[in-house]
Amino acid sequence: MASRDRSAPGDGGLGRRGFLLGGAVAGAGALAAVGIDAAVSAGATDAVSAAPLNGDVVVPFHGAHQAGIDTDAQAHVSLVALDLRADTDRDALRRLMRLLTDDAVRLTRGKGALADTEPELAVSPARLTVTFGFGPGFVARSGAAAPAWLRPLPAFTIDRLRPEYGDGDLLLQIAADDPVTVAHATRMLLKDARAFATPRWVQQGFRRAHGTTRPGTTMRNLFGQVDGTANPLPGTTGFDEVVWSREGWLTGGTGMVVRRIAMDLDKWDRLDRPGRDQAVGRFQSTGAPLTGTDEFDEPDFAAKDAIGFPVIPEFSHVRRSRSDDPAERIFRRGYNYDDALPTDAVSDAGLLFVSFQADIDRQFVPLQRRLDELDLLNEWTTPIGSAVFALPPGCAEGGFIGEGILS
Amino acid sequence: MASRDRSAPGDGGLGRRGFLLGGAVAGAGALAAVGIDAAVSAGATDAVSAAPLNGDVVVPFHGAHQAGIDTDAQAHVSLVALDLRADTDRDALRRLMRLLTDDAVRLTRGKGALADTEPELAVSPARLTVTFGFGPGFVARSGAAAPAWLRPLPAFTIDRLRPEYGDGDLLLQIAADDPVTVAHATRMLLKDARAFATPRWVQQGFRRAHGTTRPGTTMRNLFGQVDGTANPLPGTTGFDEVVWSREGWLTGGTGMVVRRIAMDLDKWDRLDRPGRDQAVGRFQSTGAPLTGTDEFDEPDFAAKDAIGFPVIPEFSHVRRSRSDDPAERIFRRGYNYDDALPTDAVSDAGLLFVSFQADIDRQFVPLQRRLDELDLLNEWTTPIGSAVFALPPGCAEGGFIGEGILS
Repeated sequence: MASRDRSAPGDGGLGRRGFLLGGAVAGAGALAAVGIDAAVSAGATDAVSAAPLNGDVVVPFHGAHQAGIDTDAQAHVSLVALDLRADTDRDALRRLMRLLTDDAVRLTRGKGALADTEPELAVSPARLTVTFGFGPGFVARSGAAAPAWLRPLPAFTIDRLRPEYGDGDLLLQIAADDPVTVAHATRMLLKDARAFATPRWVQQGFRRAHGTTRPGTTMRNLFGQVDGTANPLPGTTGFDEVVWSREGWLTGGTGMVVRRIAMDLDKWDRLDRPGRDQAVGRFQSTGAPLTGTDEFDEPDFAAKDAIGFPVIPEFSHVRRSRSDDPAERIFRRGYNYDDALPTDAVSDAGLLFVSFQADIDRQFVPLQRRLDELDLLNEWTTPIGSAVFALPPGCAEGGFIGEGILS
Repeated sequence: MASRDRSAPGDGGLGRRGFLLGGAVAGAGALAAVGIDAAVSAGATDAVSAAPLNGDVVVPFHGAHQAGIDTDAQAHVSLVALDLRADTDRDALRRLMRLLTDDAVRLTRGKGALADTEPELAVSPARLTVTFGFGPGFVARSGAAAPAWLRPLPAFTIDRLRPEYGDGDLLLQIAADDPVTVAHATRMLLKDARAFATPRWVQQGFRRAHGTTRPGTTMRNLFGQVDGTANPLPGTTGFDEVVWSREGWLTGGTGMVVRRIAMDLDKWDRLDRPGRDQAVGRFQSTGAPLTGTDEFDEPDFAAKDAIGFPVIPEFSHVRRSRSDDPAERIFRRGYNYDDALPTDAVSDAGLLFVSFQADIDRQFVPLQRRLDELDLLNEWTTPIGSAVFALPPGCAEGGFIGEGILS
């Protein structure tokens, strides 16, 4: 994907204490500072003021794939599912996607949307990405053929699904390193979608902030576990095969699973450290498998302890989630959630599990079935929301997301 | 306040992709990198890996004042109000505050609390501060005399207060630049408080992320307005007089007002740009007063337009909030909120208004009365929560917050 300059941020939020005229910072890895147009005022001459701001970093919207999938995960996400209004027909879908694509192009460049009443809040994209997914209802309304896996997941015995966190016709994944940016982009997109669709659910999540940890550090979930060690990394062997579809209009797109997984922190608290390590099959301290010392050591499932039991228990999460079938791999890109409760409860926390895979039936479902049958972690986690979306490929400048089935 | 080193972060979250042994980074302004103990591995030799991390920055807990008041506002806050259990007597209050102080000291240094089951989540303080406030019930239980202003605010006609966002015996303001740090610290403190008190409400807020804007940039609220231009800045003339109490056990402490102010974004949307500027008395674009060109220009309330009307309307927010009495000043340190709604509504957003002032009756109430009588902004904002707390002074190493009334 090509890097793009962003235009000057205008007059937004930059007073006499440090005035910066436009920051042209771009890059797929979002770390390379391409340049700064101008930095004026006395305060801007020292190193702190002249350093490029993460807030100015632009992730290019256009490309073969949608951004926000293989993009290094931003700190904040807002996942929004919409239901199409009854009178939103195929022509309306095209107008909707043209409009939302235009909004996304502008917002991700640090510009206000066309009808933006607060463009001043748009000036810091902070690696904003807006990613669109189509639910079964959207594809049906478009008249296109849906991939076979585009339907609610099979019922799992561990599920305690709540309808207010399930399904949806259109998914917006709005992610950036700045929560104000996410709030503004979310509202702007929802306003423009209003004539075509109504919000079904919104789920907000977070990871470590930009600048908290070194790039490449695996996230920890709110159980304290290193979460995602075995994840295929964008740019490494196998990633493309895991994620990108090669079927029809979805070629260059992917399948997305969203699961809201409540984590019972109080119950988890009562489990001692060895119990935790056994449940996961990894040391909480380092993330290393119980047969290793480093997070990235390969688990040795054959290793036995002194009395002949597997060092990594057969019911542990790491064992149960590992398949012998190399096709059963997924790419996870989830977030923590921790919602405030105005009640007596101490927490309402968990994981917004998000995974991308070319074929949900072939890659995700068998894995989830194994975990449903047996996974010690199920003692402390409960899926309470579930949704599946088809994410079309990206588009070029002038095009729009979904043009493959709506043009 | 003295800077302190933090200990090595241990084994948490730093795998082979970038291993860092302890970051000793400190400073009241939280910008000065004092040093890095060691940075090993191949990846750590380049500039990106060797740069100090904001996640490692420690705001010293100990000092004449509590941290989190004159501390440059962090990106995320969790405001937690607790109700004391019926059997929590004065001795128990002392145990509670010793325990929570010890937790806060450790957590703000990037260490787990004593009973921490996820110390790995504590390794990145990211400028964490934990600030304690006592409500009327707490002070009464302690047997100490309360300042006259420590009571619910007088009823204002604009208020539509909801009990689930009001009052409380003990307030924890937990703020950091990282949302995972805030989530972990909040949970740790709530767990340790559980035997003594129950959560009454939790309110989460955010500002721009670290690295989004230059230090010193005034925040914008979700109406898009520059918010806080006239705020006295820590370290400038008058700040100490505005904020710090000089009365009895509260000397070195302050009074805190928390107001949850719902902002009707949909109604605000229907107001055009000139209408918005008139309502506030400042240009939304630059934050400059309607009589000026720069955010920090002094408003000229005497200026008249061609037909003799004040350029800055008499009912504008900036005019109504400005007092001729220099004693009627407050220090604001608020946050945006934007909660997810699993309903048809497009937003549940607003401002967690937080102000600090030595004497709430003398400084805050007259100002709020003026705004209650007339302030055009009242058309779009509704106070739905209100609480008042006395924040005792800080403590030295080995002491605890509240020792002035509990020792």
